Amino acid sequence: MGGKTQIRVRYQETDQMGLAYHGNYLAWMEVGRTEWFRELGMPYKLFEEKGVMLPVVEMGCKFTSPIRYDDLVTVETEVTHLTPVRITFSYSLITDKRAADGFTTHAFVNREGRPVNTAKKYPDIWKWLEENFGN
Amino acid sequence: MGGKTQIRVRYQETDQMGLAYHGNYLAWMEVGRTEWFRELGMPYKLFEEKGVMLPVVEMGCKFTSPIRYDDLVTVETEVTHLTPVRITFSYSLITDKRAADGFTTHAFVNREGRPVNTAKKYPDIWKWLEENFGN
Amino acid sequence: MGGKTQIRVRYQETDQMGLAYHGNYLAWMEVGRTEWFRELGMPYKLFEEKGVMLPVVEMGCKFTSPIRYDDLVTVETEVTHLTPVRITFSYSLITDKRAADGFTTHAFVNREGRPVNTAKKYPDIWKWLEENFGN
Amino acid sequence: MGGKTQIRVRYQETDQMGLAYHGNYLAWMEVGRTEWFRELGMPYKLFEEKGVMLPVVEMGCKFTSPIRYDDLVTVETEVTHLTPVRITFSYSLITDKRAADGFTTHAFVNREGRPVNTAKKYPDIWKWLEENFGN
Repeated sequence: MGGKTQIRVRYQETDQMGLAYHGNYLAWMEVGRTEWFRELGMPYKLFEEKGVMLPVVEMGCKFTSPIRYDDLVTVETEVTHLTPVRITFSYSLITDKRAADGFTTHAFVNREGRPVNTAKKYPDIWKWLEENFGN
Repeated sequence: MGGKTQIRVRYQETDQMGLAYHGNYLAWMEVGRTEWFRELGMPYKLFEEKGVMLPVVEMGCKFTSPIRYDDLVTVETEVTHLTPVRITFSYSLITDKRAADGFTTHAFVNREGRPVNTAKKYPDIWKWLEENFGN
Repeated sequence: MGGKTQIRVRYQETDQMGLAYHGNYLAWMEVGRTEWFRELGMPYKLFEEKGVMLPVVEMGCKFTSPIRYDDLVTVETEVTHLTPVRITFSYSLITDKRAADGFTTHAFVNREGRPVNTAKKYPDIWKWLEENFGN
Repeated sequence: MGGKTQIRVRYQETDQMGLAYHGNYLAWMEVGRTEWFRELGMPYKLFEEKGVMLPVVEMGCKFTSPIRYDDLVTVETEVTHLTPVRITFSYSLITDKRAADGFTTHAFVNREGRPVNTAKKYPDIWKWLEENFGN
């Protein structure tokens, strides 16, 4: 029921305010969904090898508590919406308290960047998605 | 009536999908609001020198058309909400077409990271904000 | 005799030491050589469209004076070595004083990542390189 | 005799050539020395809490074999030079083969950015450094 992984905040990810720069949270969310997919037996790399890519079409994040250098951050990842053409992940970033909540919505596209209906074009991928994240 | 600046997409900002990685859009939005503040005579640096910092407390972005390597992107910036404790910027990112729309909401905090009411604690800053962005 | 371009240091590029993180200098050097090539009439994009890519095979940098948020940095770029299989750029990064000196050496490779001899395989590219940077 | 840690290449770290962008190697080297210091009982964070910072004054890297998305990279770190005012780390980045060799040289500076002689000003830090990395 959801993935859980940890990242350690790099010095490179801080800014002169002494916080982690907000743009980096997106990379940590990427780590969250990637490690979860790997754990479920379907590394994201396999999607691309099959010709399916998942560019982000929408994202959002609320920052409630600062994240700082060297913090160990737990990234909890869930799929909160799934259709044959889109998938939405939701994330909680947790230090010693809940630090941020975000989401990313991805389209399924082919190598030319055109939207694809996975149920029709990639039934094996769709089956895996539905089994793991369908409701 | 809003700021307008341009950025050129760096190779470093692309990913192996051949697109600009979504996390980088936040840095471009930062350039958008920064250059606009500079143009209005109040470089963001001055805020920090006076002891006021503007961490991001919420952000969001919709991606409608891809942005690629070497694209020249126009970043249009507006203030869409202003109170003595928060400010929200909205952005449109435009290549040959509208590519993305986003926003960032910032809290005003002091050097210790505590929220400040600019109208009370920094009346000169508040005056400048209200004159430029108030409605 | 060399290219000259300017970058403005982004907040995202700072770290909690209050300096620009050293890894970002590489991205600025990239801007330096890219803008110079564009000015000379051969945007780097054209190389890739012709099937030639220039991955970095060696790099180095000495940091002599700090670069900080919002600094306007002049990047001076030169070609200091050129053969049909490699090209070396040298860079000076200058604020109000000389801040850093670096270099990047690039191999010419094809889309499969294999080294190519531009003089043999891409004589038009080689001619342009030699005319502009040969000694 | 030296530290060993692993990083997983993020999508964010790739570029459109399908490789990890060279500037990111510096962040991985940072992870290498950071995790090693932690393992030795002296997290880098403690240096900064004591008032000592280690900005990079020189760096270099040779890239011998590509590093790609999702690669698991072993970062081997050693101290190859140590004086009371400077420290040099050397790194090997290894995938299924040796992919890159680099180094970073850091100055010891105080909060104002002035060079400090650790043997004189921070004898406890110097003692720890010499015990662990002296020859």
